[in-house]
Amino acid sequence: MKGYAMLKIGQAGWIEKDVPKCGPLDAICKPLAIAICTSDVHTLWEGAIGERHDMILGHECCAEVVEVGSLVNDFKPGDRVLIPAITPDWNSLEAQAGYSMHSGGMLAGWKFSNFKDGVFADFFHVNDADGNMAHLPKNINVVDACMLSDMVPTGFHGVELADVQFGDSVLVIGIGPVGLMAVAGAALRGASRIIAVGTRPKCVEVAKKYGAEEFIDYKNGKIEDQVLKMTDGKGVDKVVIAGGNVKTFEAAVKCLKPGGKIGNVNYLGSGDYITIPRAEWGVGMGHKQIVGGLTPGGRLRMEKLGALVSSGRLDVSHLATHVFEGWDHVEEALLLMKNKTPDLIKPVIKLED
Amino acid sequence: MKGYAMLKIGQAGWIEKDVPKCGPLDAICKPLAIAICTSDVHTLWEGAIGERHDMILGHECCAEVVEVGSLVNDFKPGDRVLIPAITPDWNSLEAQAGYSMHSGGMLAGWKFSNFKDGVFADFFHVNDADGNMAHLPKNINVVDACMLSDMVPTGFHGVELADVQFGDSVLVIGIGPVGLMAVAGAALRGASRIIAVGTRPKCVEVAKKYGAEEFIDYKNGKIEDQVLKMTDGKGVDKVVIAGGNVKTFEAAVKCLKPGGKIGNVNYLGSGDYITIPRAEWGVGMGHKQIVGGLTPGGRLRMEKLGALVSSGRLDVSHLATHVFEGWDHVEEALLLMKNKTPDLIKPVIKLED
Amino acid sequence: MKGYAMLKIGQAGWIEKDVPKCGPLDAICKPLAIAICTSDVHTLWEGAIGERHDMILGHECCAEVVEVGSLVNDFKPGDRVLIPAITPDWNSLEAQAGYSMHSGGMLAGWKFSNFKDGVFADFFHVNDADGNMAHLPKNINVVDACMLSDMVPTGFHGVELADVQFGDSVLVIGIGPVGLMAVAGAALRGASRIIAVGTRPKCVEVAKKYGAEEFIDYKNGKIEDQVLKMTDGKGVDKVVIAGGNVKTFEAAVKCLKPGGKIGNVNYLGSGDYITIPRAEWGVGMGHKQIVGGLTPGGRLRMEKLGALVSSGRLDVSHLATHVFEGWDHVEEALLLMKNKTPDLIKPVIKLED
Amino acid sequence: MKGYAMLKIGQAGWIEKDVPKCGPLDAICKPLAIAICTSDVHTLWEGAIGERHDMILGHECCAEVVEVGSLVNDFKPGDRVLIPAITPDWNSLEAQAGYSMHSGGMLAGWKFSNFKDGVFADFFHVNDADGNMAHLPKNINVVDACMLSDMVPTGFHGVELADVQFGDSVLVIGIGPVGLMAVAGAALRGASRIIAVGTRPKCVEVAKKYGAEEFIDYKNGKIEDQVLKMTDGKGVDKVVIAGGNVKTFEAAVKCLKPGGKIGNVNYLGSGDYITIPRAEWGVGMGHKQIVGGLTPGGRLRMEKLGALVSSGRLDVSHLATHVFEGWDHVEEALLLMKNKTPDLIKPVIKLED
Repeated sequence: MKGYAMLKIGQAGWIEKDVPKCGPLDAICKPLAIAICTSDVHTLWEGAIGERHDMILGHECCAEVVEVGSLVNDFKPGDRVLIPAITPDWNSLEAQAGYSMHSGGMLAGWKFSNFKDGVFADFFHVNDADGNMAHLPKNINVVDACMLSDMVPTGFHGVELADVQFGDSVLVIGIGPVGLMAVAGAALRGASRIIAVGTRPKCVEVAKKYGAEEFIDYKNGKIEDQVLKMTDGKGVDKVVIAGGNVKTFEAAVKCLKPGGKIGNVNYLGSGDYITIPRAEWGVGMGHKQIVGGLTPGGRLRMEKLGALVSSGRLDVSHLATHVFEGWDHVEEALLLMKNKTPDLIKPVIKLED
Repeated sequence: MKGYAMLKIGQAGWIEKDVPKCGPLDAICKPLAIAICTSDVHTLWEGAIGERHDMILGHECCAEVVEVGSLVNDFKPGDRVLIPAITPDWNSLEAQAGYSMHSGGMLAGWKFSNFKDGVFADFFHVNDADGNMAHLPKNINVVDACMLSDMVPTGFHGVELADVQFGDSVLVIGIGPVGLMAVAGAALRGASRIIAVGTRPKCVEVAKKYGAEEFIDYKNGKIEDQVLKMTDGKGVDKVVIAGGNVKTFEAAVKCLKPGGKIGNVNYLGSGDYITIPRAEWGVGMGHKQIVGGLTPGGRLRMEKLGALVSSGRLDVSHLATHVFEGWDHVEEALLLMKNKTPDLIKPVIKLED
Repeated sequence: MKGYAMLKIGQAGWIEKDVPKCGPLDAICKPLAIAICTSDVHTLWEGAIGERHDMILGHECCAEVVEVGSLVNDFKPGDRVLIPAITPDWNSLEAQAGYSMHSGGMLAGWKFSNFKDGVFADFFHVNDADGNMAHLPKNINVVDACMLSDMVPTGFHGVELADVQFGDSVLVIGIGPVGLMAVAGAALRGASRIIAVGTRPKCVEVAKKYGAEEFIDYKNGKIEDQVLKMTDGKGVDKVVIAGGNVKTFEAAVKCLKPGGKIGNVNYLGSGDYITIPRAEWGVGMGHKQIVGGLTPGGRLRMEKLGALVSSGRLDVSHLATHVFEGWDHVEEALLLMKNKTPDLIKPVIKLED
Repeated sequence: MKGYAMLKIGQAGWIEKDVPKCGPLDAICKPLAIAICTSDVHTLWEGAIGERHDMILGHECCAEVVEVGSLVNDFKPGDRVLIPAITPDWNSLEAQAGYSMHSGGMLAGWKFSNFKDGVFADFFHVNDADGNMAHLPKNINVVDACMLSDMVPTGFHGVELADVQFGDSVLVIGIGPVGLMAVAGAALRGASRIIAVGTRPKCVEVAKKYGAEEFIDYKNGKIEDQVLKMTDGKGVDKVVIAGGNVKTFEAAVKCLKPGGKIGNVNYLGSGDYITIPRAEWGVGMGHKQIVGGLTPGGRLRMEKLGALVSSGRLDVSHLATHVFEGWDHVEEALLLMKNKTPDLIKPVIKLED
């Protein structure tokens, strides 16, 4: 089979590989559509997860099942399925403790294009098919379905980590596709006020559709100064971090009320330390909770979030700004994600309808 | 009346002041015993809360009520009471949100020897007597009662923040009096293994009584190296920080399993930033929750924790290593706390029985 | 002053009373608009809270402040305010434990028209003004403001008790005004599917606006049979009970998945026992959590929920189907609530703009 | 192989069966010791789970591994292991939702002697060996190890469901072996006061060792009357139900403060309805949470609770009052459990050391 692979850091191309083997609990699938993630860019060009050779890229897609293992009960060849970016080992100690995304080690629930080949290939392998795939609802098209692999669950997880409650004021830092889903998630969990940090016009336009009304441009001054001004010096109840870097937490802590919570879902690619400002963190005692987490994956998550899209309560169609058709466009789509044109949110490639 | 006051940063002495006025919700009390806190040392000699002039020191004591306001229902002159270090404004928005210790502003539930005169005086003022004092159980002596103002609630709060569950392995960093109470609290909440960082022989001896079995000396190598070695590279489930400085969080994060929690109750007196190691924090996504918080105060807290002492389930008598009698010993006790002799845990001064 | 009072069970009328006294923490207010609650009907005609003589009725209104006590900081005469039905004593042990609505005894946070005179009068008394009133946002009209006293917080509390999460399927039993707000709250907290039990055409019409798509008529068969059929025998994730009686819990338990939660906010007026079906409750071990609770009241709650209305995220205007002008209409409005015409949701009386 | 089986309701005996087959994820084990559970009595003589023919009984034991499937990583023949009574399918939707004990249907995580043969046999089958077995710590003897299958996790789960916090007053209803572990668990989670309902002298003696100081005999009057008298009319913070029947909840609700929680782990064998008293449940609004649940099982649970025994923090040796040696004693032990002599807590049969 063919797959679009990272040959080494900084270099990618099509390679030939054997079709993966299907264990008794597993499935082999072929993509119906794939989406490019910023993580693919980090992996390939920045070496975010270290060196890899001939590793097929990609962890966002929906797919059709072509083979299932002998112990798989709920799926059969021909089924159309949602595929989560995170496919845990559900019997691991970490999963039993409620942190399936870290099954087998920190972040190790993320397998595609990390510990094994990804989904940008004729066929790919899904561990624990019954536990990790979900049937694709008929009224979700293949492009929207790709948003359920990572963008929706990750953005929404930021909202879960920040523990948004009815009437909360929420600051969302970063309005790329994950940040936009954090905005949508905050609105859908009852925030009364959503302030977003970001300036790209296309993203601002879409963020307004998802429920943000106020926007901050970090070029106009420190984020914390702007937020404190907008909130009469009180700060916000919750912060979701979906962009920025290790320095971003300084602003987040300074914007937050005591008793507030920061939920980070942003990959921090460089820097030795996240820096938490001592005084504004209450000299250690301000109850400003900081937590960052990889999104949960697996079947239940796909079913629950899929139901939000399927029911029409969450419209993800604003994300896929660039839709291509056919495998020929993988490189173009990847470069588009790397270079981020002003009108880009997500590039998606349809392979079948 | 007389009070032992901070005259300015670095200088203390007895001063004369008017007896405080009693508002309709308030009480005026006289101490039965007082205890010295490291915070008194920080306040007086390090200027931890900024400059103060002629402010009476102290926030740990038990007391007898001498006057109550017209709206006070549950206390009367002559009652013997537990006094929490933290005395919130219970109708504040922060208290309604569950963070009473930050009522009126971050950390502002701490009033004694911070925003008003403290308890090292013939008389002191308690705001919201019904909401903040508790009746002193008859079988708790006045020395032990002082441990309920701050040491027990603060140490136990570290355990609450770290969310210790049945069978957890817990690392307690620091075994001064607060750390010792964190050890006791972790044992009392069902930890199966308690590793403590600390070396002072007296503290180690008492920590063993409270349930720690393994001890780490940071002079023998990095804390994280020792903890990871002791746990076969897996780390611990939870960390309570009750000592150290802004750098201590690095070790805590490195010792922690993904999905683990850090509860800090240590005052961080200097440094611009707490530094969180990026890689070991899962590049932002390891679900290693970090929270630091001032202990809750108020009446219910005093009643609940007082019941643990009163019932004999918690023996705080190991803490008061140095017990004096009479106001004359305040300066001596303060200096003892400043200089920390090897056999010191807490100095307490009895004023009445 | 004049007030519309319950003279005794079954009999109401205008009476003359002294203007209430204002304690140091309190406020005296005059209503800008009032709303009739089913509880007024229960109290007056069914003796739900026992006998009362010459007790002024009413606990839903918005108001203007006319006097404040000497210790009130944040309000002054002339301020327009939101008034919660529940006005806790915030320093009580129950409030400190997180259950302010039970301050001073079970349900005793509910004071208006229960332990003291209500709001259907020229003037009424608010205990702890700083802790219990909220400034009325300028863009909320006085009719909508009345919905924030009880309907919004109660309906939303059902959703909080049932702990609705992203993608949950939710059954709402009862679509009177509280049930409608439960529907709105479930949608606003991320439910993917809302099934409602109710048939009155006006209520069904409004429930659709708030996010319910599927409706059950209990005349068409048992609720549980219909729900299980609609969910392929699996049941729903959560149930909010906002109508019915002590028997309603049987259906709720039978409709619920193991691990599900039932949040009841319905007043249960008669019957000795709520009956929980043994087998479907998992012979005691099915993890189907049952909790019923009086809504939280107080200032923070009013501010948070008020912000949802003020920001346009929650439109409560569908509730007030019958709006009158002037005190003359109190009796008419009460009888309307008692007799419930097909087009009625809530009757409101405007007194000033 | 031989197994001691339920031949039909009311009749048991030794039968011959094939050794169970080992699937790729599974293990085949032989018992080192087995314990009799009241559930065995319910199953066999009361038909609690319905009719069964030739089903081998038993779900409490520790064991030695004799065979493992090809996908098992962490166990090998010869390993000595803890066996939980509950062995979930960890990739099920229910487990992903946090309710593994209901994987595949309510209570269906309980497989031994329910959906498949139990452990009273030469050999038995464990589904998902890596996810459900734990290595037996060397310093736990085989008799104590049997207490970790069901007694410890079930009693402790009652405490978890009731959410016992530092300083809580806790009522434990029933002091059979599960109730005794609920007492131990409440003490180990920081209860300040434990009142137990029960009278058998041996159980009272052991309950005192585990931390109960006050005992109620229901023959001396209603439980609620006695509890309210002991608590000055206030009631307790939390209730764990580990005995009684569907009527027991009435007393539990009446004993409980508003905001309190009831955790039931008692099997309710008969009666159509659990009856919740309407008035004392706050006419539906008293925030008295009721939840009953099957204990979690699986490997992590065994490791965590095993660590409490292994570390000496939990001494389970008081439970096994009757220890036999050899398979010959199964019938005798079962009858002992059925007839409950005054000095009986648990009968255990050692098969190897």
